[in-house]
Amino acid sequence: IEDIRRMQAEFTDERDWNQFHQPRNLLLAMVGEVGEVAELFQWRGDAAEGLPGWSETDRENLAHELSDVLIYLVELAEKCHVDLPQAVLRKMALNRRKYPASKVHGSAKKYTEY
Amino acid sequence: IEDIRRMQAEFTDERDWNQFHQPRNLLLAMVGEVGEVAELFQWRGDAAEGLPGWSETDRENLAHELSDVLIYLVELAEKCHVDLPQAVLRKMALNRRKYPASKVHGSAKKYTEY
Amino acid sequence: IEDIRRMQAEFTDERDWNQFHQPRNLLLAMVGEVGEVAELFQWRGDAAEGLPGWSETDRENLAHELSDVLIYLVELAEKCHVDLPQAVLRKMALNRRKYPASKVHGSAKKYTEY
Amino acid sequence: IEDIRRMQAEFTDERDWNQFHQPRNLLLAMVGEVGEVAELFQWRGDAAEGLPGWSETDRENLAHELSDVLIYLVELAEKCHVDLPQAVLRKMALNRRKYPASKVHGSAKKYTEY
Repeated sequence: IEDIRRMQAEFTDERDWNQFHQPRNLLLAMVGEVGEVAELFQWRGDAAEGLPGWSETDRENLAHELSDVLIYLVELAEKCHVDLPQAVLRKMALNRRKYPASKVHGSAKKYTEY
Repeated sequence: IEDIRRMQAEFTDERDWNQFHQPRNLLLAMVGEVGEVAELFQWRGDAAEGLPGWSETDRENLAHELSDVLIYLVELAEKCHVDLPQAVLRKMALNRRKYPASKVHGSAKKYTEY
Repeated sequence: IEDIRRMQAEFTDERDWNQFHQPRNLLLAMVGEVGEVAELFQWRGDAAEGLPGWSETDRENLAHELSDVLIYLVELAEKCHVDLPQAVLRKMALNRRKYPASKVHGSAKKYTEY
Repeated sequence: IEDIRRMQAEFTDERDWNQFHQPRNLLLAMVGEVGEVAELFQWRGDAAEGLPGWSETDRENLAHELSDVLIYLVELAEKCHVDLPQAVLRKMALNRRKYPASKVHGSAKKYTEY
């Protein structure tokens, strides 16, 4: 994640694009990329793990769109001064406490329903 | 990213949640989390870098929601058998070629407009 | 649609909320509501027409969230000076030409693939 | 809204597309269209009412994308057996009660904060 952050910062600096990369702009760009991921999945019905039946082109497109989501997410966090690697560790620890394995085994209920 | 992937896989296994974590379910979960990020930004007007004027609670909430987007993104990639760290490096190299710094300096146009 | 537009304008005026309802704010609010719709569908697998198996509460929540999407969409169009009822008629006529029934019968391909 | 519903139903029937138009497919299609709206707004900074400075092409594209969101929203509601015109009236009445004009005048706080 730190590598992506650094490479994207270089990429943006070299192009003088920081003027466009305010938080809300990056958020809308991320929404746009999530929309492109959705378009790849929309008319196919449920997809099983590993996406059997997808062509090489579809897989390649998916890899590109998921990467775009990640790139904008990392840059959005940076421009908001959120330390994403640390934040995600804290959130995963929180999730472990919110959803104790012994209690929620095999159930998709929300933690507020326990 | 590999650490997040591994920790999330453990988290999901311990709770027997893989039955719920098909690709489209994870995609919709990611859309839900992106929506929660949007809600934090919606009534404030443009936010400058570093989010001056945001309270500690707002920042903490933002860190949580951005983390949730990342967690579902990493798991979605895994369940689609997309190697996300490799894909993002390939995509960033592609972006460098699509938007040559010498050509696009200071312009927000799409590459199809060059 | 015109009724929704007028009622939402009254609602916003009475509360002096037009100061918050700029186009990008409304767009992010709509993204937030779409995220809430996604959350209702996320862990269930494919849903058949009519949503068999959904509780009354789930259906009621869905009706509320779809309504919120529509309310923000109508207001977003208004604040952008887009005549939505007219635009949708034009877009549907365009779709009829882009996807001739004789050609696309039973196929989910994009029009660029014909 | 009833006209859009009826015209979209005819459009879908003529093309034998109901097989693709299950609720979750339509939801992802709507997410895709919301993403296209976001892309139109992403690098511009805050847009004022009426979108001063937008070209005729940008406005036309926006009208098309907002229409696409509406078309999929109406069809999604139908396939979920949600009566959207009635639901939106109920939701607007609920919003009036949740946010009394006398109390919330000029404030963007959430109703849970009152």
